[in-house]
Amino acid sequence: MNYPLGAKSTEKKSISYGNRGMNLEYDLNETNNYYLIQNIAVVYKKPTPIKIVDVDYPSRKEAIIKKAYFQIPSTTDYNGIYKEKYIDFEAKETMSSTSFPLANIHAHQIKHLERIKEHGGIAFLIVRFTKLNKTFLLTIDSLSYFLNNYDKKSINLDFFEKQGYLIDEKYNPRLDYLSIIEKIYFKGELK
Amino acid sequence: MNYPLGAKSTEKKSISYGNRGMNLEYDLNETNNYYLIQNIAVVYKKPTPIKIVDVDYPSRKEAIIKKAYFQIPSTTDYNGIYKEKYIDFEAKETMSSTSFPLANIHAHQIKHLERIKEHGGIAFLIVRFTKLNKTFLLTIDSLSYFLNNYDKKSINLDFFEKQGYLIDEKYNPRLDYLSIIEKIYFKGELK
Repeated sequence: MNYPLGAKSTEKKSISYGNRGMNLEYDLNETNNYYLIQNIAVVYKKPTPIKIVDVDYPSRKEAIIKKAYFQIPSTTDYNGIYKEKYIDFEAKETMSSTSFPLANIHAHQIKHLERIKEHGGIAFLIVRFTKLNKTFLLTIDSLSYFLNNYDKKSINLDFFEKQGYLIDEKYNPRLDYLSIIEKIYFKGELK
Repeated sequence: MNYPLGAKSTEKKSISYGNRGMNLEYDLNETNNYYLIQNIAVVYKKPTPIKIVDVDYPSRKEAIIKKAYFQIPSTTDYNGIYKEKYIDFEAKETMSSTSFPLANIHAHQIKHLERIKEHGGIAFLIVRFTKLNKTFLLTIDSLSYFLNNYDKKSINLDFFEKQGYLIDEKYNPRLDYLSIIEKIYFKGELK
């Protein structure tokens, strides 16, 4: 399901990356682990919030959760620090080849990213079009611009191509999103 | 169990704060919520990491976790942004009236706080001596100093009194730890 479709992607397939590209979360965790080991940045995925209803204690030290529910996250999945800057992002995959449905992000997550920006942090989305094997970084500025100017329920691929930044997929780091952050926010090379 | 013992604390008791001081996590969540609403800072507690073993799907939309375990957290409980600065801390309560057992913090959590400092963030511990009704902020610098200079399994109250900062407990915000961060890191008023 995650295999590349396009010609460009087929070329990539010939390079054996093992279990590369299993999914976006996996790639980001590997990338963040690389950043950590190389002492480039400290970024972690937050645990999934869970509402615990029932816990068993078969022994003093052991606890087994017997009943729990998934909760809607209050914030985004990833945050951390890069070159003294607070960074914060949400990462999503879509199976659509044409657009990213906004229903994939909660309104309060967008609000959260806007707040982060307001307080001087770097906030963005990472969106993967799985079938196209393309992963984009979209800043909160571009996302806010879209939401304020388009009355649509999804963001077209075209908007990502024009306003977002395609993240190179490599062996290591798999998804070097910080190289884009570096260019946008530290070197001012990208608009 | 959380009621104050000392004379100073007894005075405080006469002020009715409702469910005030139920526990440190509650106080910090209230405080962070105040900071958020007042637009002072964006700080959240991370969810507890849980390893899910078994999930039931009684309907398409509903998922019930039937078996799961608590995991050891990779990082600290709290992080966020204050005045463009990344902040990160761990919060712990102890029932001891004399010292804080270091077994309460995982070695990798201390390593994490040291990394945050190295990358230009603000890292610290918040430790409450529950029986004394005293809550201290201890910077990672002071913690590292202790670990490098004392071969002890717990940090004496005296060290907190001298090297840490007592956090005032108020009605709102309950535990104004950012006023201390402001003085240490922004105004340079405290050493």
